Amino acid sequence: MHIDKNILIALEQRYRANLINCLSGFKPALLVGTQSPSGDTNLAMFTNVLHIGANPALLGLLVRPAPAGTERHTLDNITATGEFTLNHVTTSILPAAHQTSARFPRHVSEFTATGLTPEWRDDCKAPYVKEAPVKIALRLAEQQTLAINNTTLVIGEVQSIYLPKEILREDGSVDMAKGHIITSCGLDSYHATAPGTRYQYAKPDTKATKVT
Amino acid sequence: MHIDKNILIALEQRYRANLINCLSGFKPALLVGTQSPSGDTNLAMFTNVLHIGANPALLGLLVRPAPAGTERHTLDNITATGEFTLNHVTTSILPAAHQTSARFPRHVSEFTATGLTPEWRDDCKAPYVKEAPVKIALRLAEQQTLAINNTTLVIGEVQSIYLPKEILREDGSVDMAKGHIITSCGLDSYHATAPGTRYQYAKPDTKATKVT
Repeated sequence: MHIDKNILIALEQRYRANLINCLSGFKPALLVGTQSPSGDTNLAMFTNVLHIGANPALLGLLVRPAPAGTERHTLDNITATGEFTLNHVTTSILPAAHQTSARFPRHVSEFTATGLTPEWRDDCKAPYVKEAPVKIALRLAEQQTLAINNTTLVIGEVQSIYLPKEILREDGSVDMAKGHIITSCGLDSYHATAPGTRYQYAKPDTKATKVT
Repeated sequence: MHIDKNILIALEQRYRANLINCLSGFKPALLVGTQSPSGDTNLAMFTNVLHIGANPALLGLLVRPAPAGTERHTLDNITATGEFTLNHVTTSILPAAHQTSARFPRHVSEFTATGLTPEWRDDCKAPYVKEAPVKIALRLAEQQTLAINNTTLVIGEVQSIYLPKEILREDGSVDMAKGHIITSCGLDSYHATAPGTRYQYAKPDTKATKVT
């Protein structure tokens, strides 16, 4: 099938949103934990999260523009406190994690609404999710608006990482599949993954070789 | 296990790169096809690709800063011609796709080196990958440098989409798992995915409900 730009523009809005949100392929699924200056906790599922750099250790979060009059609790809290957590979604907490995307009023914590448990560690001003095996605390490092569609790229520097010893490999890489971490696609689809195949660092004069 | 910032800074460089590259979780795996103004084709695997917006339809590509003296063929070609393609990696072309990440000299096309086939469609100045079932042509729309670590966020507007009819659902979403599209994690791990579980649009007063 071929969908060119003219067809794309003419598509019904919801159909186009489904299609384009799938086009980038598989994404992570992360719960972003924040707290407002007045102490309200917030939890929201984000899938547009990406690796920005390893040294300094930076992760990015893309926040879509809010239509006039709507609230963006996560972004407001990050801007106000400078801190947030990222918590990886596993198969077992998936329904609760998806439910955080409902439009709860500001005074209702998604923790209370979904049954997930806020956990306070270190001196982090943002709550972790107790049920998530892999969790990261970040400090706001840079915030940039993309002129083209007014989305906000929030870049955080990693302050603290918690993860189970069993999924941390000897070389520092993390076996997310073994940890039952899921991947997402589009606006509403979540997938378990098969054990990974690893390849050695590619060199021009040798064929791709699996790590065994 | 707890890894705080002090431990992180003290880690051996390769270990830290493995760890931090895994932290954002699952990512896509896409082959970026480009052509230089003098007609050299280039193909490179990227995993830091994300959805930027649906209307206009925008995808972003994060390109790491090149150490002094090294070449960035993909970025140079995109800047010069304003066009590039994104081609989803499937299980069957994975070894060839990984091999594109080897440091081939500019005059050696990764198509020739890996056996993948360039395909020219529409009037796109960049080659598609014939073996990839899902492929997208994009035109450079915005390019932004992230001040914090000098990476470049390349944003392209979707011009053309090719995909098999069998994986396009009635609502416009794409079943990437059914299309044998893989997901990646970290620097060298690739995973097949299980069929997805879809959830209905979340509402505050109803529990998370699967789409059946």
